Amino acid sequence: MFDIDAVRKDFPILSREVNGKPLVYLDSGASAQKPQVVLDTIQRAYAEDYSNVHRGLHTLSTISTENYEAVRGKIADFLGAASEASIVMNTGTTEGINTVAYGWAMPRMEAGDEIVLSVMEHHANIVPWHFLRERMGVKLVWVEPEADGSLPAEKVLEAVTDRTRLIAVTHMSNVLGTVVDVKAITSGAHAKGVPVLVDGSQGAVHMKVDVADIGCDFYAITGHKLYGPSGSGAIYIRPERMAEMRPFMGGGDMIREVHRDEITYNDAPMKFEAGTPGIVAQIGLGAALDWMTGVGMDSIAAHEVSLRDYARERLFGLNWLNVQGDAPGKGAIFSFTLEGAAHAHDISTVLDKKGVAVRAGHHCAGPLMDHLGVTATCRASFAVYNTRSEVDTLVDALELCHELFA
Amino acid sequence: MFDIDAVRKDFPILSREVNGKPLVYLDSGASAQKPQVVLDTIQRAYAEDYSNVHRGLHTLSTISTENYEAVRGKIADFLGAASEASIVMNTGTTEGINTVAYGWAMPRMEAGDEIVLSVMEHHANIVPWHFLRERMGVKLVWVEPEADGSLPAEKVLEAVTDRTRLIAVTHMSNVLGTVVDVKAITSGAHAKGVPVLVDGSQGAVHMKVDVADIGCDFYAITGHKLYGPSGSGAIYIRPERMAEMRPFMGGGDMIREVHRDEITYNDAPMKFEAGTPGIVAQIGLGAALDWMTGVGMDSIAAHEVSLRDYARERLFGLNWLNVQGDAPGKGAIFSFTLEGAAHAHDISTVLDKKGVAVRAGHHCAGPLMDHLGVTATCRASFAVYNTRSEVDTLVDALELCHELFA
Repeated sequence: MFDIDAVRKDFPILSREVNGKPLVYLDSGASAQKPQVVLDTIQRAYAEDYSNVHRGLHTLSTISTENYEAVRGKIADFLGAASEASIVMNTGTTEGINTVAYGWAMPRMEAGDEIVLSVMEHHANIVPWHFLRERMGVKLVWVEPEADGSLPAEKVLEAVTDRTRLIAVTHMSNVLGTVVDVKAITSGAHAKGVPVLVDGSQGAVHMKVDVADIGCDFYAITGHKLYGPSGSGAIYIRPERMAEMRPFMGGGDMIREVHRDEITYNDAPMKFEAGTPGIVAQIGLGAALDWMTGVGMDSIAAHEVSLRDYARERLFGLNWLNVQGDAPGKGAIFSFTLEGAAHAHDISTVLDKKGVAVRAGHHCAGPLMDHLGVTATCRASFAVYNTRSEVDTLVDALELCHELFA
Repeated sequence: MFDIDAVRKDFPILSREVNGKPLVYLDSGASAQKPQVVLDTIQRAYAEDYSNVHRGLHTLSTISTENYEAVRGKIADFLGAASEASIVMNTGTTEGINTVAYGWAMPRMEAGDEIVLSVMEHHANIVPWHFLRERMGVKLVWVEPEADGSLPAEKVLEAVTDRTRLIAVTHMSNVLGTVVDVKAITSGAHAKGVPVLVDGSQGAVHMKVDVADIGCDFYAITGHKLYGPSGSGAIYIRPERMAEMRPFMGGGDMIREVHRDEITYNDAPMKFEAGTPGIVAQIGLGAALDWMTGVGMDSIAAHEVSLRDYARERLFGLNWLNVQGDAPGKGAIFSFTLEGAAHAHDISTVLDKKGVAVRAGHHCAGPLMDHLGVTATCRASFAVYNTRSEVDTLVDALELCHELFA
């Protein structure tokens, strides 16, 4: 039974005020707040059991390694991966997608090869591919969303040609909230021999993910959006793709033997994890995933659907507000602009005076901003700890903006 | 006035026991323990002020950005860098050196170009260069230390030819404790037009670093060895070199504008920082550097010289112990093997029963192990919180090993 009061009590920051008003945190799409159990796990890991991992035999190193490696299994379970060997632990989606770009794509693509992207992608799933365009002449093929922000799988698949080497697509737009049918895309792409990378930065936070069911080749997640520490994360990589990859970053842990003129690499997934990792951040991510599983992904999703429906009703009721995107089944993320001269940054500033934290800017989604014909929007992104009453506070504050800037 | 009792009280983990004995932590070379102020800073950052950085205007985002960006200045001060614009924040030395390998070296080197390395380098300062050897035909030129483990600057400079494009050398060996005269190397290298990268993973922990005085082009540090959180770090990059670099990882924050067929990058140093960083880890690193500065780098160095002298005297007094390296002015890091059949791992296990944590293995220094003719050693590495009495405990435990394995 989902208990919003109990959930909120788990997050110490939610009891703080901003500008003399209770904090209404609607910026979880940028980074989520952390439950107390994550903070306690971090404290304990440092104050009681800390050591480097993998390289020692003494007691603290053994404990630390066990605690750290246990997270690999938690991530595999969380994503529905059959084996924890398909989980590369890292600092988040950006590192994950760069690992694929440098380790898998660069050595196997050539000028004229094509990568299909949606116009809704986050820069983390754009810039690494721009590198291939700039450095190697790879062509980026863009698929536009429909007017309501939806992205039909068939539209993505129509963009595939015999030069397509990869489809890289988000599971959930961080601006429009659109949920993409990545299973249908993967199924169609595989029929044409094209691998699929899914940016799960938002998707994994808001719905139960099953990479085995989706069938994708890569699924990237980022811990700080999953109620975990900044600097934690992972990427699921299908074993066939992992076998094709060369190492990305070089350093300790990812090698087997290093000599002056010869080097051999560790088995996957360690082959793709160089140097001392963010040990405690990753252990904290394990606690965050346990917390989410404890609340229940279905309960989290149901709560957020309820928030989405209520926020949708209230925001679409403001006839001076332009809400971008209204795809069926979208997540609880709303981007909007105000009619008239009010800039997104001004709106954000006014909302902040009322304690309401929203993001203003391009949301790391340049091509989507171009497509929408705006330079910036405001974005209210909801999470497990938000309430309908916070939607009302947001709407009240927006009405104040409307009065101020009308 | 250096007060060892006060210092030790700052580290909560030092009061724990291991196998019923007080913990004697002599594995700080792998990763250092954290003072309470670092743990408190992490807690506060998450429980009171957390948000993503750089991208928002609301109060929490502003606070978080200020706290995060303040660390850049702390690192610049800590390293003696004239400007914080020369500090790229990252997850540690491995990422730092890979940033240089991918961003600076790869686009400007070609087959037959040479990189001069010492045989004492850590894998973090070897594997990225092996990538250039494997992928581009760059030649690695190795300089061996003297019999006592010292590495004369002139020997490094003698290895420079007209094909040398970089010297990559450690400031302090993580195995032998050897301190390298990186200033003399840099001065000689620059006279020949060769840039110098210094791996400061150990050096910056144990002595006052002044990159302006050293004159080097790159100086990499790692936060978890500097009493800071795992997953924190930075690299100093000389402005002329930074201007020559292309981005390494692609994602948010490092761009100025992203369109479908065009991309422009942010100014340095942001150009080299992609995606949501390890915000709180980095804020914790700032607290760690403040803590070190509060104790005083000169006091830390003096305390460790005293420990080194005492440990040296006691360890060299054991005529069945082979201590590797005894360079003048070395740091308080001692690697050793026992005469006879005892494997380093066995020794580590016995010491652990006495509460003494040392590392056993290749210490991520394959070429040095080859050079020493061993596959593994034990390593006792000392830090600010260690005592002479702990040296005695180590020696007592080693004597037990000698009895057991003689």
